Amino acid sequence: MTDSYSINKTNKVRQLRENAAYDKASVYGVLDAGLVAHVAFVQDDSPVVVPMIYGRVDDTIYLHGARKARVIKLLEKTSRACLNVTLLDGIVLARSAFNSSMQYRSVTLFGAPQIITGNDEKLRAMRVISEHSMPGRWDELRDSHEREVKMTGVIQLNIESASAKISAAGAEDEDEDYDIPVWAGVLPITTTIGSLQDDERLLPDVEPSDVVKAMQNRTL
Amino acid sequence: MTDSYSINKTNKVRQLRENAAYDKASVYGVLDAGLVAHVAFVQDDSPVVVPMIYGRVDDTIYLHGARKARVIKLLEKTSRACLNVTLLDGIVLARSAFNSSMQYRSVTLFGAPQIITGNDEKLRAMRVISEHSMPGRWDELRDSHEREVKMTGVIQLNIESASAKISAAGAEDEDEDYDIPVWAGVLPITTTIGSLQDDERLLPDVEPSDVVKAMQNRTL
Repeated sequence: MTDSYSINKTNKVRQLRENAAYDKASVYGVLDAGLVAHVAFVQDDSPVVVPMIYGRVDDTIYLHGARKARVIKLLEKTSRACLNVTLLDGIVLARSAFNSSMQYRSVTLFGAPQIITGNDEKLRAMRVISEHSMPGRWDELRDSHEREVKMTGVIQLNIESASAKISAAGAEDEDEDYDIPVWAGVLPITTTIGSLQDDERLLPDVEPSDVVKAMQNRTL
Repeated sequence: MTDSYSINKTNKVRQLRENAAYDKASVYGVLDAGLVAHVAFVQDDSPVVVPMIYGRVDDTIYLHGARKARVIKLLEKTSRACLNVTLLDGIVLARSAFNSSMQYRSVTLFGAPQIITGNDEKLRAMRVISEHSMPGRWDELRDSHEREVKMTGVIQLNIESASAKISAAGAEDEDEDYDIPVWAGVLPITTTIGSLQDDERLLPDVEPSDVVKAMQNRTL
């Protein structure tokens, strides 16, 4: 395993190249921070994009859905998928519309999706996806029923190529625009996981575990 | 103009149908709340998905990028694009992994992208995109230079079919699982636009306008 993805026609960032990164630390950092991926594939020569939760182990992304869902059946059949995870971090209000922009962390990756069929292998992948958004939760829940595993379609996507594009810069204006007496700056955008809200049907005396409490009040 | 998109093979929601909506009010509501769209298209028989900011007028979505950017050149050439806007609203911690899920607002739409070439028409579309994330800002900025408009590629995407999928429900568990003494509930997710951060090179005595101040402290 090398520490970077090789740059090729597919993953090469052409615009704002100074924001591009191909090292695995940058790519993994964005993938591990996000909660939702946008997965694109081709159906009958037409593009389709579907939001999905996911998990990652090394260079493998795991996705799931209902076994009979269109997205699972199509990912099973197709030889190519593209996945993007984007987190917005701010709106950059420059001194011109042209130089106004966003702050963001974004990863785009490509790979060949494969369906996972074995019960144990599916369970391992389902655990990875669960742990991504609910770390520690899997072990405090009851075991999955065999029927539930059968009803779940699990897709494995090995990262063949990937790039990150990260912008944390403020306004960068044309030299002459700095003389315009207009306010400029950044409006930060934050995505936050808040505080636990009890289900209406909690059993008496049931409290959230330490694992669940630790999921609260976190910024992505 | 009717008030709903007709349901066909392309936009029909098959999973969790009870969360599906095809009325324009629901679709517009999600599109107007989001800041980033994921736009998918086909390049050399392979899927590509790109995050883009956008704006909307009635059933037309506007997108932009550098005129020479791959995404603009491909959207110009392709006859078909798929666009998704998703906002995450919560993590639903059910009493089983199988019933754990997310709260979200999501719209998927399909259309034929067209490039906009006229200077005035481009400017109108660029204004729509700008107003979507920075309402009121366009009029307080200097006019766009002709060169800037030329360097900007603007794409128009008329919504041919669309669906919204919205879930705000809490945990819905199997009857027998309600007896398990495990905590269940929701972890809300909020995306917030925060407070203005001054650019380092502000002119003395320049203050943010009321329009800019009004962009602060807003939840998507």
